[in-house]
Amino acid sequence: MKCSVVLHAGLLEQADFSGKTVVVIDAFRATSVIVEGLHNGAQEFIPVKTVEEAKLLKEESPLYLLGGERDGVMIEGFDLDNSPLNYTKEVVGGRTIVLTTTNGTRALSGSLGASEIFLGSFLNASAIVRKVAHAKELVLVCSGSYDEVSLEDSVCAGAIIYSLEAQTSIEWTDTAYMLRTLYSTVKDDLKGFLAKGEHYKELVAHGFEGDVQFCLQLNKRSVVPCFDGTTVKL
Amino acid sequence: MKCSVVLHAGLLEQADFSGKTVVVIDAFRATSVIVEGLHNGAQEFIPVKTVEEAKLLKEESPLYLLGGERDGVMIEGFDLDNSPLNYTKEVVGGRTIVLTTTNGTRALSGSLGASEIFLGSFLNASAIVRKVAHAKELVLVCSGSYDEVSLEDSVCAGAIIYSLEAQTSIEWTDTAYMLRTLYSTVKDDLKGFLAKGEHYKELVAHGFEGDVQFCLQLNKRSVVPCFDGTTVKL
Repeated sequence: MKCSVVLHAGLLEQADFSGKTVVVIDAFRATSVIVEGLHNGAQEFIPVKTVEEAKLLKEESPLYLLGGERDGVMIEGFDLDNSPLNYTKEVVGGRTIVLTTTNGTRALSGSLGASEIFLGSFLNASAIVRKVAHAKELVLVCSGSYDEVSLEDSVCAGAIIYSLEAQTSIEWTDTAYMLRTLYSTVKDDLKGFLAKGEHYKELVAHGFEGDVQFCLQLNKRSVVPCFDGTTVKL
Repeated sequence: MKCSVVLHAGLLEQADFSGKTVVVIDAFRATSVIVEGLHNGAQEFIPVKTVEEAKLLKEESPLYLLGGERDGVMIEGFDLDNSPLNYTKEVVGGRTIVLTTTNGTRALSGSLGASEIFLGSFLNASAIVRKVAHAKELVLVCSGSYDEVSLEDSVCAGAIIYSLEAQTSIEWTDTAYMLRTLYSTVKDDLKGFLAKGEHYKELVAHGFEGDVQFCLQLNKRSVVPCFDGTTVKL
């Protein structure tokens, strides 16, 4: 398998995904939210770029739930923020959730053109590995943070590559090899390492320490969300 | 000190260097060539983007030496290739060398606007650290390889950050922290790690194993080349 990495969503314009399998990663927190929501029985997620789009969809379909964040916090008039802990069975079971987040939804729309698009996080890393082990060409798309590399998405990509290596032989790019090596170094103290990251510190400062702790649980869920260009479902 | 990293020259258009100290890294081989040439008494290097520019300069000043590569190998009509081993005292002592390489010269011209621009490599990492330890804002510019991250430049940036950390307190970006951690992991087997890199393999396949071995010698030279926008000298 050929394996490469896009380090943040700002680099997606240069990428050509045709014929490739893509895994989009936004570990803190969009892809973790979607994994947790689908695990808890949500029917589907509709990722949209703007708050206005989300509100328009709800006007058309009042049963939709609106979820997401701007600058990390809940959007006025929305039903849910971007905390995976709030996407419980009771709240999201059977529901469609319109989700808008800063970087994750941008990475999803930027990956269109790939032959398949899955959503990865620490929560479902092993499940992702099982799903993509067959791919000839795999691109891990880190959402990053506003055109910058983010530690958590990079390390999550490394975790996926590290596990893939046990399943199949990999022809990696320098970036993929770098992240795989980084993960193998820090895997026994993920939290300690990622706590130095800018996004981690920002989330903790906003009171979301519970969220990051939750998102860092490796292989807790076995669902593999798939994006068809419009909705994300199992 | 604030410390950030540009991972390859293709990302330079987005960067704003005003008021910042920049270290340009092209470890295999342009910045190593310049370090070695200046160590051996070359008067200066003039980096240019094209072969034509280089030849025009030599027409005006026949004593100039022409050095560089295209796709790793020597350019027809040039005096020197891009092998640091050929920039000996006998050949380059007292001379001006016009140098054109694929990624290194691009990274240099892309860094204009910084308040100071130094050239770093494994060979002069400690000397670079002493020179920039005073900086308020440091950007390590990895040349990379044709719009891609290269393992050797990334690890060299990590080596510089790792040594800086012992001299001053650093406020790093996620990328800087990642590379510093990567370097601390692989520093005892630099060659073994970098041998997995695409550029390393390409150079060895072209018969330049001696060059990469040379370039990987940490702190062998104490010169710090400085680019004033036109020429590189001490």
